Amino acid sequence: MTYCLGILLDSGVIFASDSRTHAGVDNFASFCKMTAFDRIGDRVIVLLSSGNLAGTQAVISLLRQRSTAKDGPLNLWTAQTMFDVATVVADAMRDIERRDGTHLKDSNLAFNASFILGGQVKGEPPRLFRIYAEGNFIEAGRDTPFLQTGETKYGKPIMDRVVTPAASLSDATKCALVSFDSTMKSNLSVGMPIDLICYERDSFALRMQRRFEHGDPYFTALSRQWSEGVRAVFKQLPELPW
Amino acid sequence: MTYCLGILLDSGVIFASDSRTHAGVDNFASFCKMTAFDRIGDRVIVLLSSGNLAGTQAVISLLRQRSTAKDGPLNLWTAQTMFDVATVVADAMRDIERRDGTHLKDSNLAFNASFILGGQVKGEPPRLFRIYAEGNFIEAGRDTPFLQTGETKYGKPIMDRVVTPAASLSDATKCALVSFDSTMKSNLSVGMPIDLICYERDSFALRMQRRFEHGDPYFTALSRQWSEGVRAVFKQLPELPW
Repeated sequence: MTYCLGILLDSGVIFASDSRTHAGVDNFASFCKMTAFDRIGDRVIVLLSSGNLAGTQAVISLLRQRSTAKDGPLNLWTAQTMFDVATVVADAMRDIERRDGTHLKDSNLAFNASFILGGQVKGEPPRLFRIYAEGNFIEAGRDTPFLQTGETKYGKPIMDRVVTPAASLSDATKCALVSFDSTMKSNLSVGMPIDLICYERDSFALRMQRRFEHGDPYFTALSRQWSEGVRAVFKQLPELPW
Repeated sequence: MTYCLGILLDSGVIFASDSRTHAGVDNFASFCKMTAFDRIGDRVIVLLSSGNLAGTQAVISLLRQRSTAKDGPLNLWTAQTMFDVATVVADAMRDIERRDGTHLKDSNLAFNASFILGGQVKGEPPRLFRIYAEGNFIEAGRDTPFLQTGETKYGKPIMDRVVTPAASLSDATKCALVSFDSTMKSNLSVGMPIDLICYERDSFALRMQRRFEHGDPYFTALSRQWSEGVRAVFKQLPELPW
């Protein structure tokens, strides 16, 4: 499984991804699911990968190759809006699907790569998308400011209670990490390290990027304080009168 | 969908179930999913139903009919252990499956009734089981004191953080209700009213049973205080130092 999370705030965008990849419980490994493309002063684009690793890696490689082309169709550097960036990613996904899809189908497998895409291109506010395996996509808005992929349920209640577009980058970062903590406690196929990017609106630079390894002192303290705090709130709830 | 929850404690057993039944979003209704059989001083047996309503209702009706038989095979009143009660329920499930299964299969449907079963028969401590649609079952133990069916994920993190076998009936009741609150916030197909039974060990009587309708003052207060408390804990968590 996987857990990826993007949060669109008035003040920027938070991205977080786990790094557990597995083909059955007897074959698991760590792969970073976060890829960033940034050109200082012009754009920051972040992709979070979910689904079959061969598919997501192929899409990222193709995007990289295409982004070095001097001319030709739009690429990650020449797109002028995040909508166009999303279509660039979708085109790469569909090209890989065209190449691999029938071969996967022969083994009853499907091309299931999907992405959370977000960031900011100069001239626009930050935007956040979820691109489905078919290449179509949805965009986060004020009513639903966060998008998740993979094991989304365990970590959703805390997001629903805390995250609004007006939340600060700092609060949303804490919330994302608590959401990962809850998810990892219940699903072994979501695992550390956790990759985190905290993008500040209009900075057009990747200034806050961090990896949390197993045993990370901040994450461990956050997890412990959250557990203790939740239990304390719980103790103070009114008893049911019979 | 459905959400049913049983919690086995040193001091008793908690049962809770929602009552939303639906066949698509354009056809939903309320049906109680909780059925109790009690004989004061001797036994309390509670069943929580999940899955196809025709299947679970048929199983309950068959259990009722068989429990009035003067002789014949074991029934809910003559079984001397909760293990035997579980086999009585499983036998009824398999009889209904034998009757309906092939007809359902013709329409590409499966017999998918399943149950949480718990309670206490005199001579034993309280016990709690989850009976699968196939009629086999697992029993809760000290390592895993609660069992869930249906939409289990949204409400699991709070259970994992708070519930141990040593928790009081009162605390586990609060936790069950918070778990339902989190689930209903995320899944529209889990809905009120919520039925609750709080069985006190060795009481052999149903003394604490309650239905929470939409707008119930206690449930509403619990939900609000929990939300506010969680947000307050959240505010106090340490900020990530960059």
